[in-house]
Amino acid sequence: MAVNGQHDTPRDTPLDDVPRTTPLGVTVWSENYHEPREEEVRRRYPDGIHGAIAAGLREELGERVRVRTAVLEEPEHGLSDEALAATDVLTWWGHMAHEEVDDKVVERVRRRVLGGMGLIVLHSGHYSKIFRALMGTTCTLNWRDDGDRELVWTVAPGHPIARGVPRPLVIEAQETYGEPFGVPEPDELVFISGFAGGEVFRSGCCYRRGLGRVFYFSPGDQEYPVYHHPGVRRVLANAVLWAAPQDRPGEPLQNAHAPITW
Amino acid sequence: MAVNGQHDTPRDTPLDDVPRTTPLGVTVWSENYHEPREEEVRRRYPDGIHGAIAAGLREELGERVRVRTAVLEEPEHGLSDEALAATDVLTWWGHMAHEEVDDKVVERVRRRVLGGMGLIVLHSGHYSKIFRALMGTTCTLNWRDDGDRELVWTVAPGHPIARGVPRPLVIEAQETYGEPFGVPEPDELVFISGFAGGEVFRSGCCYRRGLGRVFYFSPGDQEYPVYHHPGVRRVLANAVLWAAPQDRPGEPLQNAHAPITW
Amino acid sequence: MAVNGQHDTPRDTPLDDVPRTTPLGVTVWSENYHEPREEEVRRRYPDGIHGAIAAGLREELGERVRVRTAVLEEPEHGLSDEALAATDVLTWWGHMAHEEVDDKVVERVRRRVLGGMGLIVLHSGHYSKIFRALMGTTCTLNWRDDGDRELVWTVAPGHPIARGVPRPLVIEAQETYGEPFGVPEPDELVFISGFAGGEVFRSGCCYRRGLGRVFYFSPGDQEYPVYHHPGVRRVLANAVLWAAPQDRPGEPLQNAHAPITW
Amino acid sequence: MAVNGQHDTPRDTPLDDVPRTTPLGVTVWSENYHEPREEEVRRRYPDGIHGAIAAGLREELGERVRVRTAVLEEPEHGLSDEALAATDVLTWWGHMAHEEVDDKVVERVRRRVLGGMGLIVLHSGHYSKIFRALMGTTCTLNWRDDGDRELVWTVAPGHPIARGVPRPLVIEAQETYGEPFGVPEPDELVFISGFAGGEVFRSGCCYRRGLGRVFYFSPGDQEYPVYHHPGVRRVLANAVLWAAPQDRPGEPLQNAHAPITW
Repeated sequence: MAVNGQHDTPRDTPLDDVPRTTPLGVTVWSENYHEPREEEVRRRYPDGIHGAIAAGLREELGERVRVRTAVLEEPEHGLSDEALAATDVLTWWGHMAHEEVDDKVVERVRRRVLGGMGLIVLHSGHYSKIFRALMGTTCTLNWRDDGDRELVWTVAPGHPIARGVPRPLVIEAQETYGEPFGVPEPDELVFISGFAGGEVFRSGCCYRRGLGRVFYFSPGDQEYPVYHHPGVRRVLANAVLWAAPQDRPGEPLQNAHAPITW
Repeated sequence: MAVNGQHDTPRDTPLDDVPRTTPLGVTVWSENYHEPREEEVRRRYPDGIHGAIAAGLREELGERVRVRTAVLEEPEHGLSDEALAATDVLTWWGHMAHEEVDDKVVERVRRRVLGGMGLIVLHSGHYSKIFRALMGTTCTLNWRDDGDRELVWTVAPGHPIARGVPRPLVIEAQETYGEPFGVPEPDELVFISGFAGGEVFRSGCCYRRGLGRVFYFSPGDQEYPVYHHPGVRRVLANAVLWAAPQDRPGEPLQNAHAPITW
Repeated sequence: MAVNGQHDTPRDTPLDDVPRTTPLGVTVWSENYHEPREEEVRRRYPDGIHGAIAAGLREELGERVRVRTAVLEEPEHGLSDEALAATDVLTWWGHMAHEEVDDKVVERVRRRVLGGMGLIVLHSGHYSKIFRALMGTTCTLNWRDDGDRELVWTVAPGHPIARGVPRPLVIEAQETYGEPFGVPEPDELVFISGFAGGEVFRSGCCYRRGLGRVFYFSPGDQEYPVYHHPGVRRVLANAVLWAAPQDRPGEPLQNAHAPITW
Repeated sequence: MAVNGQHDTPRDTPLDDVPRTTPLGVTVWSENYHEPREEEVRRRYPDGIHGAIAAGLREELGERVRVRTAVLEEPEHGLSDEALAATDVLTWWGHMAHEEVDDKVVERVRRRVLGGMGLIVLHSGHYSKIFRALMGTTCTLNWRDDGDRELVWTVAPGHPIARGVPRPLVIEAQETYGEPFGVPEPDELVFISGFAGGEVFRSGCCYRRGLGRVFYFSPGDQEYPVYHHPGVRRVLANAVLWAAPQDRPGEPLQNAHAPITW
């Protein structure tokens, strides 16, 4: 019996835990809006928020990753087809310039995620075009910015993203995010944060979409040195490993109308 | 303590099972593409696919619903703000003309669903703009059209949409849909279909999005009299009751940046 | 074609929102351990914790329910076959005497839940035999008792159990429960609580098991007047309506080895 | 600030994809009831069903696993504390002798799973004490045994257990299992099978319980040479890698009443 060639996966696909012979390609993306405009943010993140995130991943993951950064002002925002083809996991930080991101690039990234590329969306990236496009919902939340202490509690202790993360992870001062968070119910909820003011927030949410994996992590703001926090760096390193393609990255799963070819 | 007025719900909200004093407003939408063009389809569905679906809902639900139909060629596709404001549950059938649906109308419907309006997406509507926008994924599938017998099996016997549905529901001839279906994992999987050729398909999928509920049901094609089938009519009637707003329909859940107002 | 008689549901099964002609049978169960032994608890709950819960349900639901109470010291703990046959929804409060509950009664209740009876498990009931039997996990949690303020946040605003519940629901003093909570990931997470000390807890968890529905709600302790709180009473009333059988209550779904009888 | 020592995980926990320096310990368990009693089964599985499963894992996974077998008639069924302490993943096949499995051993295995050990339950093991204890539900299904062709369809193409598995996986003759399957909704549904007679079955179901992972896979029967099928062997090899502990295996997650120790 012939099977649908489109879906057939050759028997010689390597098994999951064969040590990778090549490092994971990671692209750390940021809008880089605050840094050139605000001296205080620049002091906090002299290499940009993207620079701090990239440094943390290199420190935690060493030779297992090849990390590059990309920012809004680059051509195609640094997210050309070639760049994405070399990316196993993309991390996204945006805040002020969501609307300046080209819809064509958003759709290109979305199709890559559905084809197997991992995506890690950070903090105010909850309202980015790419996250809203993949979730389909408002992706809105409540907030206040009073420098409250945030405690990030692990609710899924067996989850790979929680491995080696302090329980709780203590962030001395942070912007407060509050429920309800306008997202689909996560496929796996890993972290819930509690704030000194009493708010709670689902701060670590996993989604499976197409062949890809998406992780949203809320801690991280331009006003606080969150991306220098060793516990946060550990979460992001774990998330990169978790979000890495489980199968070969490639084009989106299927065409619109794929006949069954017996 | 003041609470966030935006989210506060008055204590006098009626409890769930208070019998409705007004019928549910149901809008049955169809692109109405095949019917005027193909005599055979017109013989099968003299009042259009939308007419057959509406008749089934009126027959099953009687005075509990007020059913109207709307089609693509109407101004705003018959889905004006006023029309949607009077709609508790919208059913959607489309196939050939997905791309002709105005993006502004799609976004209007999407925001209504997130605000609490129920949505029931039928058959080839899997590839409609509104379903893809709400799911965020490819929403693709595999198919062949050989008139196979479809058996719709209930996998969630306690689910309200399965109530009174034959197990299995037998559809003597149907287009075959096959996995993988490019959707997020359903919040509740109610039906799985098996086809004479051996394919399987998740034919009844529930999603919660924002304040709204979405149900996808795959049986139903212009080439077969599926919407005259009493078992299919029962599923659609159950689905309308299930998808009805659990809370007051209204504007989408939140604004983009809602401050927490203590 | 004959279908499996065991699963066939007659077409005349009433549709979901037909107003019930008979009230829901609710049994409010409690171990009644603290009340006779501790004067302070008796002052707080002169009719017992079960009496306070029953009063709240009668107040909120009026003629839509017929509420009885049952306690550990009754024969068969007040949960005979006859009593359960007349019960649509059972609420469970226990703390000190979990081990004194007869395993035969636990199994009887478990099979009723799988057959369609609703179950609402309260507070320290997280460690009851019946909840652990239905969840299969440790059902453990972390705790301290310092009278912290608890804020119960709605994370699923469209959920029927959240209807009319203040956002947040404020409980001025409560025992603190903390994650990780050793339960399966809820099928729907409705509430998350935050405590003054910074802990968070998944305080409102929905599960579908067999034909039945299970809701766990954590607020409520013998040391605090939580069951007199109007917001808590509203949650419990909503939960009774949500947990009510979606189909006829009956014996568990299937036999161990049910042949497919075509 | 001190954190709850019980939950604190040292920062030096190895990251996920560090190649293991030691092979995974796999115990393949079978009741070994049919083999000594039925010559035909013995011809089909000269080393027992457990022997065939173990051979497949060794062939697929080589030095990455250290596979041992254990059967019912051994002391403690070959599942002593020492044996389980050396087991990262346990596979379970049973059919006729479920009731002969010692409840103490069942509870020991259950606690190991909640503590992080992977469990793979096969075919008629759906009705084993260990699977029912972990699921909490009836775990029943419908069946007939007419040697139908089974097509195992991948519904989660990005899932590690589906990697390298033919789509569909064709099993020429098999016992037919049918829905409804009395289990909690899977955390991830990987495979759905369709049978020549038209039945469907959720044949590959993933669950997360405590720190452990559970995978149920339905193909496999003493009357058919299913465990010699290369596609089935690939599924089982993938499942062993997926179910392997994500964190150090250890004692169950928590004690019954763990105070929060600030």
